[in-house]
Amino acid sequence: MSAPPVLEKVSSNKVFEGELTKYKFKSEALGGLDANFNLFLPLIPNSNKVPILTYLAGLTCTEDTGAQKGGFLGVAASQNIAILFPDTSPRGADVPGEDDDWDFGTGAGFYLDATKPEFAKNYNMATHITEELPKVIEAAGLPIDFNRQSIFGHSMGGHGALTLYLASKTKQYRSASAFAPISNPTKCPWGEKAFNGYLQGGTTEGLEKYDATALISKASDPVHILIDYGTADQFYKQGQLLPENFLKAARETGHDEFQVRVRSHTAYDHSYYFISTFASDHIHFHANFLKA
Amino acid sequence: MSAPPVLEKVSSNKVFEGELTKYKFKSEALGGLDANFNLFLPLIPNSNKVPILTYLAGLTCTEDTGAQKGGFLGVAASQNIAILFPDTSPRGADVPGEDDDWDFGTGAGFYLDATKPEFAKNYNMATHITEELPKVIEAAGLPIDFNRQSIFGHSMGGHGALTLYLASKTKQYRSASAFAPISNPTKCPWGEKAFNGYLQGGTTEGLEKYDATALISKASDPVHILIDYGTADQFYKQGQLLPENFLKAARETGHDEFQVRVRSHTAYDHSYYFISTFASDHIHFHANFLKA
Repeated sequence: MSAPPVLEKVSSNKVFEGELTKYKFKSEALGGLDANFNLFLPLIPNSNKVPILTYLAGLTCTEDTGAQKGGFLGVAASQNIAILFPDTSPRGADVPGEDDDWDFGTGAGFYLDATKPEFAKNYNMATHITEELPKVIEAAGLPIDFNRQSIFGHSMGGHGALTLYLASKTKQYRSASAFAPISNPTKCPWGEKAFNGYLQGGTTEGLEKYDATALISKASDPVHILIDYGTADQFYKQGQLLPENFLKAARETGHDEFQVRVRSHTAYDHSYYFISTFASDHIHFHANFLKA
Repeated sequence: MSAPPVLEKVSSNKVFEGELTKYKFKSEALGGLDANFNLFLPLIPNSNKVPILTYLAGLTCTEDTGAQKGGFLGVAASQNIAILFPDTSPRGADVPGEDDDWDFGTGAGFYLDATKPEFAKNYNMATHITEELPKVIEAAGLPIDFNRQSIFGHSMGGHGALTLYLASKTKQYRSASAFAPISNPTKCPWGEKAFNGYLQGGTTEGLEKYDATALISKASDPVHILIDYGTADQFYKQGQLLPENFLKAARETGHDEFQVRVRSHTAYDHSYYFISTFASDHIHFHANFLKA
């Protein structure tokens, strides 16, 4: 990648004992399009650097959704952890059909790097999240310690968190957690559509690179994973999430309940009401590893 | 009012140790239009009744805004307090011009009862909030103790909370609080526009009935009021809020800092990021009175 682009400050809000700032920049990973993100920074004593937790939102969401509705910021402030909220796809790529459906294209980047020619220029959310954003934030001189990163997300973003965590050869993230994640995308309609749409090799390529259940089966080192889902989640009931498949694969590969915890919560659904209920749990889970 | 209308359940979400339910009903106060509201009920032991706190949202908002972004529900659950989230205006009244501006008409009911003929049929949010909603909720058999009510709100809703609290001859509410309230509407552009638009007597009628600063000057009994605002609030800086006028009038009428507390917070703005920061404070403030 060439010299990091300049961050432009879009807005900023004081919140709890910290500040949420929205930035934009010309994203090389997204083919030169403008990319927005929100960054929450706790009030930092003595210009120390803080660890960073990346939150990946779900289908149709933006960089604002988790910041506004997640209920993460108060706990993050008290734990002295920064939170990065990226967008969920490139915006304005003008690929034919990208705005036809809510579960594919704009707002539905699936946190992968596309290999189909029509999407490969812009739809590289995996590189955007794991490489580009840390680089531009660090280059801007913001007080973040990128040696201490963890990642979490919701639904499609839970899929993103689990897969980017498990696929990282450099062990970029210390821990991963997810609310109602798409846990076995090659076996559900959302994932099949995304992989067949973005990847030249379709679900075969998806199974190799971006399926959390397949990846946990290949993970030989210890992992730190927390998953929560609700039994009244309509998408769980439709078979889009399949957390049991992930859990089964984890146990079969020797990851015990200290490494992979999957919790089912009676009557909670897929909404941010569910997420906000367990927000504090997730921040504290990551704090264990980020502050170790 | 005739027999209370039947509540229709629109949706329901489990959140923290409680449940948020959206209802709709044909509102007599709003001229027969459908009215939506959200009601948060904590998990209630032994079918006891719980006290209720009404949250009034600001311009352009709906019954969802406070529920989704306020950060109130976890604290309300732990304090065993119900929260009622009404809408901010009638919807679909078809009064000419009601959708022309964001600060008047739809989404901007100002929590008053209109006296201008073209608005008087539908724009009766004061009656809707103080009389109709308690009646329909009680008639539905929900486990709420309407002898223990308090009220709070944001911006236009802060104006609503303060004025409905202070104007109540029956002392309907035990306490009132507000985030960045429009505190002296007859002296600011938003309030002047609303009063001249909805009220036959314009700002003269508004000063008499719906101006919190004027009402506190006439309040001879002790009051329980908390107000927070941020110094980076653009509407504060534009002179739309005028909390100092309210504070001055309160002190001049003998309401000391135990009765009326107005807090200025450096660098916070008008957003729900500001509200969520002080959400817990406000719930605990009302809990003092609701649980007494």
